[in-house]
Amino acid sequence: MRRVVATSFRVALAEHGVVRVAGAYDALGALLAQEAGFEAVWASGLGISAARGLPDASLLTMTEYVGAAAAMQRRVEIPVVADCDTGFGNNLNVAHMVHEYEAAGITAICVEDNLFPKMNSFVPGTHSLEDVKPFVRKIEVAKAAQSDDQFFLVARTEALIQGFGVTEAVARCEAYADAGADAVVIHSKAPTSIEVERFLLRWDGRCPVVAIPTTYPQWSVDEAVRAGVSVVIYANQGLRASVSAQRAAYRALVERGGAGDLEPRIAPLSDIFALQRLDEWREMEE
Amino acid sequence: MRRVVATSFRVALAEHGVVRVAGAYDALGALLAQEAGFEAVWASGLGISAARGLPDASLLTMTEYVGAAAAMQRRVEIPVVADCDTGFGNNLNVAHMVHEYEAAGITAICVEDNLFPKMNSFVPGTHSLEDVKPFVRKIEVAKAAQSDDQFFLVARTEALIQGFGVTEAVARCEAYADAGADAVVIHSKAPTSIEVERFLLRWDGRCPVVAIPTTYPQWSVDEAVRAGVSVVIYANQGLRASVSAQRAAYRALVERGGAGDLEPRIAPLSDIFALQRLDEWREMEE
Amino acid sequence: MRRVVATSFRVALAEHGVVRVAGAYDALGALLAQEAGFEAVWASGLGISAARGLPDASLLTMTEYVGAAAAMQRRVEIPVVADCDTGFGNNLNVAHMVHEYEAAGITAICVEDNLFPKMNSFVPGTHSLEDVKPFVRKIEVAKAAQSDDQFFLVARTEALIQGFGVTEAVARCEAYADAGADAVVIHSKAPTSIEVERFLLRWDGRCPVVAIPTTYPQWSVDEAVRAGVSVVIYANQGLRASVSAQRAAYRALVERGGAGDLEPRIAPLSDIFALQRLDEWREMEE
Amino acid sequence: MRRVVATSFRVALAEHGVVRVAGAYDALGALLAQEAGFEAVWASGLGISAARGLPDASLLTMTEYVGAAAAMQRRVEIPVVADCDTGFGNNLNVAHMVHEYEAAGITAICVEDNLFPKMNSFVPGTHSLEDVKPFVRKIEVAKAAQSDDQFFLVARTEALIQGFGVTEAVARCEAYADAGADAVVIHSKAPTSIEVERFLLRWDGRCPVVAIPTTYPQWSVDEAVRAGVSVVIYANQGLRASVSAQRAAYRALVERGGAGDLEPRIAPLSDIFALQRLDEWREMEE
Repeated sequence: MRRVVATSFRVALAEHGVVRVAGAYDALGALLAQEAGFEAVWASGLGISAARGLPDASLLTMTEYVGAAAAMQRRVEIPVVADCDTGFGNNLNVAHMVHEYEAAGITAICVEDNLFPKMNSFVPGTHSLEDVKPFVRKIEVAKAAQSDDQFFLVARTEALIQGFGVTEAVARCEAYADAGADAVVIHSKAPTSIEVERFLLRWDGRCPVVAIPTTYPQWSVDEAVRAGVSVVIYANQGLRASVSAQRAAYRALVERGGAGDLEPRIAPLSDIFALQRLDEWREMEE
Repeated sequence: MRRVVATSFRVALAEHGVVRVAGAYDALGALLAQEAGFEAVWASGLGISAARGLPDASLLTMTEYVGAAAAMQRRVEIPVVADCDTGFGNNLNVAHMVHEYEAAGITAICVEDNLFPKMNSFVPGTHSLEDVKPFVRKIEVAKAAQSDDQFFLVARTEALIQGFGVTEAVARCEAYADAGADAVVIHSKAPTSIEVERFLLRWDGRCPVVAIPTTYPQWSVDEAVRAGVSVVIYANQGLRASVSAQRAAYRALVERGGAGDLEPRIAPLSDIFALQRLDEWREMEE
Repeated sequence: MRRVVATSFRVALAEHGVVRVAGAYDALGALLAQEAGFEAVWASGLGISAARGLPDASLLTMTEYVGAAAAMQRRVEIPVVADCDTGFGNNLNVAHMVHEYEAAGITAICVEDNLFPKMNSFVPGTHSLEDVKPFVRKIEVAKAAQSDDQFFLVARTEALIQGFGVTEAVARCEAYADAGADAVVIHSKAPTSIEVERFLLRWDGRCPVVAIPTTYPQWSVDEAVRAGVSVVIYANQGLRASVSAQRAAYRALVERGGAGDLEPRIAPLSDIFALQRLDEWREMEE
Repeated sequence: MRRVVATSFRVALAEHGVVRVAGAYDALGALLAQEAGFEAVWASGLGISAARGLPDASLLTMTEYVGAAAAMQRRVEIPVVADCDTGFGNNLNVAHMVHEYEAAGITAICVEDNLFPKMNSFVPGTHSLEDVKPFVRKIEVAKAAQSDDQFFLVARTEALIQGFGVTEAVARCEAYADAGADAVVIHSKAPTSIEVERFLLRWDGRCPVVAIPTTYPQWSVDEAVRAGVSVVIYANQGLRASVSAQRAAYRALVERGGAGDLEPRIAPLSDIFALQRLDEWREMEE
């Protein structure tokens, strides 16, 4: 039984017209995303924080995030894109981050133009956008820090999230692409895709664009592709499904006073064993 | 905002006629179990392994298991019972294990009379029961290693799982209790509770008995209590619910080409924020 | 063999006229410091960074620092004071830090009034002092976050290091004490103790004062005590001794083409075994 | 600043008539070994355990060992050879170990024919040699598990340590080489090199031989090479030098009541900064 060795994100992007990315918060979710046919996995900062019962507010450390991303990547053949928030500090932190993620076998990371410490984009209230110049410098530092040409840097602007409008978002993404970003995320919390579509109308295509349709879930992959998107991230649906299901299961156990009723509605143990690739492991027993 | 400080398992057992324990594999699951009304959480070896995409076969290390259990315990006020498999080696490993789990804030652990490395009890094939004498010595070593009187040691026999019968199981559990075990688990993979009930008929009550109704889910908590059980562990239902739900969600995203249909069937982001206790954290912002 | 349970720093301070603290970067160093008679150990940020070959510049994460401090504390009976740099971010990070260090069994931490990410105090060039008001708020948040009354918070001012003078240093330390700091560090990189002594002349004693005589090593413990110091930290001498000795040993091995000459000048294996408390561990073997 | 990317051990062995390997227990030691001119670093199980104040008795977990080895490898350009003790369990553990060490960027590991859990070879008393057949199978499993052709497996026999004589040692090493081991360690605790030399006289050269002259330090590298050795490991001299020096430094601080006398005998802070490559890191600051 050989170690799982994954495709790089750069290769996945070259091979597919659109890369569909599923948010996951552990290797189990990553395996299920791969099984469903996703081309990549998003090691979600929100999800990894939630799995530890903590807010998505730069409370978890890079050690915890890179560990979680690596634990996913070691089990799946599709690439993991690691949510790296703000880059964890200044330029030195950014360079160190690239070293650590590369060493952990991660081929793509995403940094956003928020100040450290950040708060989750969907939490109302004050967020602080980093100025363009220092964030551009972070991108340059990150690209200079990589040792493998396959390494892929996604730069995400929170300009729309924080109400700075499409013009600012376009200007920022152009600057990020020119600084070396391999793709940009245009993040929006609008209830429809209209903001993102406006951005795309003004985007000159100097690098691929990534969308994260959380608040505008009715926007389909096909529509996104037609509008000019190359990568679609379903960042938190797996997490939210897991919460609903575990909540319902625990409630049923308590309310019914036993597991009998639950049994037919949950995966059998044999499914768990299959996800663990138990048969392949057991071949090595004497 | 103060650190979460949990009740010890010993106190929970004293306060409740029966302690219902929900298996979880991360802090998120532990929070949902607590919310549903469980009195304790089982830091499941199967679940923690599955979350990393690896078989429940002593592949994960004590470092990973104690880290996972501590990550749960730090977020919930109910006690976490840590599944410690075989004790991770010999007597020295057992003593070290107790030191590490106590230092991590875990107030109850469970060790089983299998040889290291073990294979999950529900996997057919050869398992090797440890002899009574060395396992009794492990229990003595574990109890001598604890530094806090609250620490609670559960000893689990796999005698029924491996076909040695009720007489052997009773003899072993008596020896384990006499060696200092604070409770015993009578584990069975029979399709009904009959084996466990036979055990209970012959049990003299020298310490509390724990049951894990995985293969006999129709056995209710009430029936278990009437038969003499003090603690019921629902070891893997949360995990299995999570797998079913994430699998369905990922499939729906791929098949429907978008998240629209899924939206009403999964927890909203506000539920995630509530589980993260975001409002309490935000009070500390300026 | 029981788990090592340490005295809290608060108790050590109450019991000793002066607490002498030795910087260490791993449990081995902590054990040697305890053996020599120190009353406490400083889990040095510089040392822990250096042990990983990285600058003391907020590159290592809180996870790495708390892990290193806990690994020390689990082996010694004297308290570990953990160097927590700037508190790792904003108020939320500070509260989380207190939760994590308390959960890891650390009874005293030290935070400094630099902005995150910091650079080691002895590195020339620009550092940025945090304003008094937000740092005072961090102290209040930290104290509110503790769950055990034994927890001890040391606040360190870098005012002298950054050239703001004694008046500013005194004003800051008074504000920090009033906000709840249990002690203050007056840090200086002057070549003599003169700056620190000027501070002490103006200090009204509202809380204990800590000194770190790195650049003014000729200042003795007795002199420091007479001047009003309650805690003296020898922050990096163990690290620097270790570097000199390992460097010399490796060079000798290469230059002499063998280990023969080195043998009499280095600790025998039996010393290593004694530090590992091997005899106590072996008592548990059958 | 780019990530450090190391030569593989296989390449180092091909490029040098003899590979001199220095034992280290953290990245700082690895950096000092590299600086002195060693061709490789031994991530010593004894050293890594001692750094945590624990016996070299399979108490630390693979997670801790691979983390320590990776922390070294990420800072040096020479290869790290990781001491993997017995392989951490059965065939499944061995395969998992290879996956984990490869994923961590380690290009060479060493496993020994002791039963898990092991005790350090230099500790008198009972050790248990694993039978040839299962250990040969472990070697086959390890080699089948590697995903990179550069990965290098060293098999170590404890036959001499446990008194089974040279004939048994040769037979075992031949079997290990035939099973795929890339090199063998002939370990001895005799006070001279005589046992090892007898082994070498009977060794047919089917793979390179490694020696660890701990108890026979007067045996020089030149003599070892002439006798047929390809790799010499100085496993614990750095650790022992570090212990002597830290012990002396801490004692001096306590006895002299200050750091003044110590100052000229220990590395200056500037040496620490140089080892941290501070100047290179600072170039990234604005």
